[in-house]
Amino acid sequence: MAANPVNNTMDFPFSASEDQSAYITDSSAPWVAIAKRKRKSRDDLIPSKWRLPASAIPKDPPSLAKGPQSVHHIPREHLSSAEVEITEGYTAQSLLDAVQRKKYTAVQVAEAFCHRAAIAQQLTNCLTEPLFSQAIERAKFLDKYLTETGQTLGPLHGLPMTVKDTFDYAGVDTSVGLASLCFKPAQKHSPMVEMLLSLGAIIVAKTNVPQTMQTLDSVNNVFGRTMNPSNRLITAGGSSGGEGVMVGMKGCMIGIGTDIGGSIRVPAYVNGVVGFKPSEGRMPYGGQVSLGVEGMSRCGVQAVAGPIARSVADIDFLMSVLVPQTHLWGEDCVFGSWTPSSSTTETPLSGSGPKGELVIGILRSDGNCTPLPPIDNILTEVSSTISSHPNILTVELPTPPAWTKSQSVMSKIMSIEGGKKMSDVITATKEPMVPWMSTRFKVGGGKPRDLLDVAAIQNQRTELEKEMSKLWYTTGKHGRRRRAIDAIICPLAPHPPPPIEGYNAVGYTSSFVLFDYPAGALPVRDIREGDLQLGKEVPGKAVSSWDERSRELWDEGKLDRRVYLGTKLSVQVVTPRLEDERLCRVMGVLEGILQSTPEGQGRASKL
Amino acid sequence: MAANPVNNTMDFPFSASEDQSAYITDSSAPWVAIAKRKRKSRDDLIPSKWRLPASAIPKDPPSLAKGPQSVHHIPREHLSSAEVEITEGYTAQSLLDAVQRKKYTAVQVAEAFCHRAAIAQQLTNCLTEPLFSQAIERAKFLDKYLTETGQTLGPLHGLPMTVKDTFDYAGVDTSVGLASLCFKPAQKHSPMVEMLLSLGAIIVAKTNVPQTMQTLDSVNNVFGRTMNPSNRLITAGGSSGGEGVMVGMKGCMIGIGTDIGGSIRVPAYVNGVVGFKPSEGRMPYGGQVSLGVEGMSRCGVQAVAGPIARSVADIDFLMSVLVPQTHLWGEDCVFGSWTPSSSTTETPLSGSGPKGELVIGILRSDGNCTPLPPIDNILTEVSSTISSHPNILTVELPTPPAWTKSQSVMSKIMSIEGGKKMSDVITATKEPMVPWMSTRFKVGGGKPRDLLDVAAIQNQRTELEKEMSKLWYTTGKHGRRRRAIDAIICPLAPHPPPPIEGYNAVGYTSSFVLFDYPAGALPVRDIREGDLQLGKEVPGKAVSSWDERSRELWDEGKLDRRVYLGTKLSVQVVTPRLEDERLCRVMGVLEGILQSTPEGQGRASKL
Repeated sequence: MAANPVNNTMDFPFSASEDQSAYITDSSAPWVAIAKRKRKSRDDLIPSKWRLPASAIPKDPPSLAKGPQSVHHIPREHLSSAEVEITEGYTAQSLLDAVQRKKYTAVQVAEAFCHRAAIAQQLTNCLTEPLFSQAIERAKFLDKYLTETGQTLGPLHGLPMTVKDTFDYAGVDTSVGLASLCFKPAQKHSPMVEMLLSLGAIIVAKTNVPQTMQTLDSVNNVFGRTMNPSNRLITAGGSSGGEGVMVGMKGCMIGIGTDIGGSIRVPAYVNGVVGFKPSEGRMPYGGQVSLGVEGMSRCGVQAVAGPIARSVADIDFLMSVLVPQTHLWGEDCVFGSWTPSSSTTETPLSGSGPKGELVIGILRSDGNCTPLPPIDNILTEVSSTISSHPNILTVELPTPPAWTKSQSVMSKIMSIEGGKKMSDVITATKEPMVPWMSTRFKVGGGKPRDLLDVAAIQNQRTELEKEMSKLWYTTGKHGRRRRAIDAIICPLAPHPPPPIEGYNAVGYTSSFVLFDYPAGALPVRDIREGDLQLGKEVPGKAVSSWDERSRELWDEGKLDRRVYLGTKLSVQVVTPRLEDERLCRVMGVLEGILQSTPEGQGRASKL
Repeated sequence: MAANPVNNTMDFPFSASEDQSAYITDSSAPWVAIAKRKRKSRDDLIPSKWRLPASAIPKDPPSLAKGPQSVHHIPREHLSSAEVEITEGYTAQSLLDAVQRKKYTAVQVAEAFCHRAAIAQQLTNCLTEPLFSQAIERAKFLDKYLTETGQTLGPLHGLPMTVKDTFDYAGVDTSVGLASLCFKPAQKHSPMVEMLLSLGAIIVAKTNVPQTMQTLDSVNNVFGRTMNPSNRLITAGGSSGGEGVMVGMKGCMIGIGTDIGGSIRVPAYVNGVVGFKPSEGRMPYGGQVSLGVEGMSRCGVQAVAGPIARSVADIDFLMSVLVPQTHLWGEDCVFGSWTPSSSTTETPLSGSGPKGELVIGILRSDGNCTPLPPIDNILTEVSSTISSHPNILTVELPTPPAWTKSQSVMSKIMSIEGGKKMSDVITATKEPMVPWMSTRFKVGGGKPRDLLDVAAIQNQRTELEKEMSKLWYTTGKHGRRRRAIDAIICPLAPHPPPPIEGYNAVGYTSSFVLFDYPAGALPVRDIREGDLQLGKEVPGKAVSSWDERSRELWDEGKLDRRVYLGTKLSVQVVTPRLEDERLCRVMGVLEGILQSTPEGQGRASKL
């Protein structure tokens, strides 16, 4: 990470409006013109009535002297009061109720969200494919349907959503920010999109991703960098970075991202919203662009699709609609039931404690990177808050060695293919690698691993799974086992949402894809001045080279900790494989307790 | 298949008591002495009080002139009337109730089943490791526990079970009939065994398998051939052949086998009992002997463990106990709930028909091997019987091309490794291949496939899964999808239970491991003289070389169809992935209707 210890401005490699010339050595390379044309065609899709005056857009480069430069207040200044109400005043379910009750037409809802998405785009560069005209056409159809039949098209009738650029949407590109994939519109929707539309959802836009999707900063040569709306000094996250920003900006109600190393949870984390990485089999993954060899994920590890939303309630609502449906849409999905928390038939959440209490394990460190003080402290704070609830027990757990080891196994398993196909796609138009990737990606690709090596890695994975599974149960008399821990709370990263290009160590998130445990990002509260412990040294010693880099993110000799103000602290909540519904309910209860509002307390009372 | 068209005796390559010298060229090879010693140590575990007189044991070789030579009547002649009652008069659940009510002690139950298992062994050669003394010790402990605590140890308290030899049972070998694995006792129980014991089950024995586990006749150099107790001319099936026979002989209440190509369903089929191949994730698979490279199944295809039992009710009972437990025992298992059919809280089985009827698809042919007349006819018969039920609709389905193609993809995916490890284990003691394998197994092993090839095969699998998934739903107006078919009925094989070494074409069973659909073998009725259509030619023409061989099994120029008398016709029932509970309920309803008994009708009324 490039940083300037002397003053408060930091060197950022590039930003939303940056001049890419810094690392472009050949401006006649084919990708340059393609990217320019693509950006223009995207920008042209923003109606002139929704364009912001230049004065409304923060000037780059961002610097600490200007503060976080949050842009969250800006949309309200440009939306009508009805549009503010529509985009800010509802949960997913209450908004759909309002459409069904005809308080709003679907067109009103779609227009309000498209308008807000257009503003979000101009402030953060989060979109790849605005689908405003399609969304409004769709809304017209929905209104007509409701008028004519007296019924909604489906349980998502009128829900404004976005999807990560990786999903095919018929008629527009799935470029994922790569020039060689531009101007090659998808022939048909991916199953995820088709499913959402069939249930009545409105897709407002597709959103930006990093070059190669292998980094956690959503920057690529075609669309440039997506900026964090809460704090322009902080990364917007990736690879579902555009989704995290859109949800944070309230440009959609719920977004769909994908996650293999943390690509749903990291953008949720750095944007202070809720992210939910399901187990494999819960959401259709197919029909996305593949930059790898088809079929390879079945020999390696499988990414999953999942939602990013403003609240656990919204995620719970969406999953309750989708989970019983997904097996009709994805060959990779299994039938499941899901009772929404709002349902009157929902049974109380019973846990593994002696009196049926929910037992929450607190897992502080993955053993590779020690959590920095604000991360360790927020775990203590959360643990203390929730354990005051009469039906919750918390247990401090030692770091399972399998968790520590999982990072390197995951890293090996993600790279079995070698990357030739990816390299070919990039070099086809002579694209350079974005700076972060340039030192980490082998142009030309490596050789695929030997099958026997891959089997050996998979066997290591099985051994780690066996070890890790012991975390969840106890063995009593006569060898009888019972569940002991219902869910785990652990960090999302050892550090707070870091400066642009500063994300380090994805072991805290990637391991739960290796283990196929569903895992969610749950925001707790804003970072406060007191969290920064200004003047206090980084405690302890680095336990690994990853940890050394992580510690730099708290080293006042290398950065001003006030860079973190304006972001939120979050925790990760995890359950065993395919216990997605349980995870969501636990997250809902925790959110309720942590928010300490009457509504939150209401949800907590469901325990 | 070696057959003699002229007279009624057929050339069998070898049988239970056969002289292996026919294909042993080097009697000084190390395996010969090991095998002899191993067989003796097994046989010594049968207490002299339980030894049958030589006159009670059928003489080999079997021949059609002697009829099926069923041995099912023999145990009764040697058991006490209490032992007959215990081993024949109960379902799994009612037997456990009797133990809990102290009608029988666990020791009485264990002794009755061990005695019966010992008889079964002498008649069919179905055991590898008799565990009679361990079982009786265990039963003593259970009785003591019940007396002292007034409670059962667990929900399987006193249930006599067997497991396939592949599962480790501490203190005895896991040789799977290979000389080089003999006299190397397992250090600990496999998770499956540990789980069953922790819940109160009694393991009576481990059972025989084929050499390499890759054939469907349970024959190996160490233990010899397991014979079919219903008809000594017919294969006993494999690879869980010993399990199928033990359940058929009522030497246990429920057995645990494993299945990748059909190894649970085929032995269930040929022995006329119920077999249940679950989805991956429902039963712990680990802790079994592996003759392949560890971890390779994660790149290829995963075998699964599952029960073989006398009735669907017994399977339902076992699964209802195990499924909520298995995630505590297998890192490969996911939490699941399972309401047993006997439960008063069970909700009626609601299907996808317009009035909630159960919709059963009839799938007659996999497109590779046309079902022979008795197989096609039994489908028609079953379809007609069940569709007379007011809450069942049947639908004839065309063969999905994906099903046809799946056989070759499965065949490729099962052989990605090359087989060197397996070959090393066999040649270590200079074992010859058993005759069937000798033309099909490459000694020394082949080269593992290239990773890119394996990915390409896995991608073909994904494409087939996509195609196959269309079978289950319909797409209506505005792209909305709904489930259309609740379960499928199809053949288990294109032919009846065939003569020894005659099993042909596993595509009907193996494909549902490729697709990871749970699938069960459900016996319908005995084969009758009328089914044989004596004198009537094989209809139609062969559609493939596999089909040519299948047709030989009905060709009166090559075999006397009366060989099939004494066996049963069965069907396969299938649902989508992880719908195991639904599959079991559907099988229970079908069994109820097909049995046409008051109890059966009672179960059918749960629709």
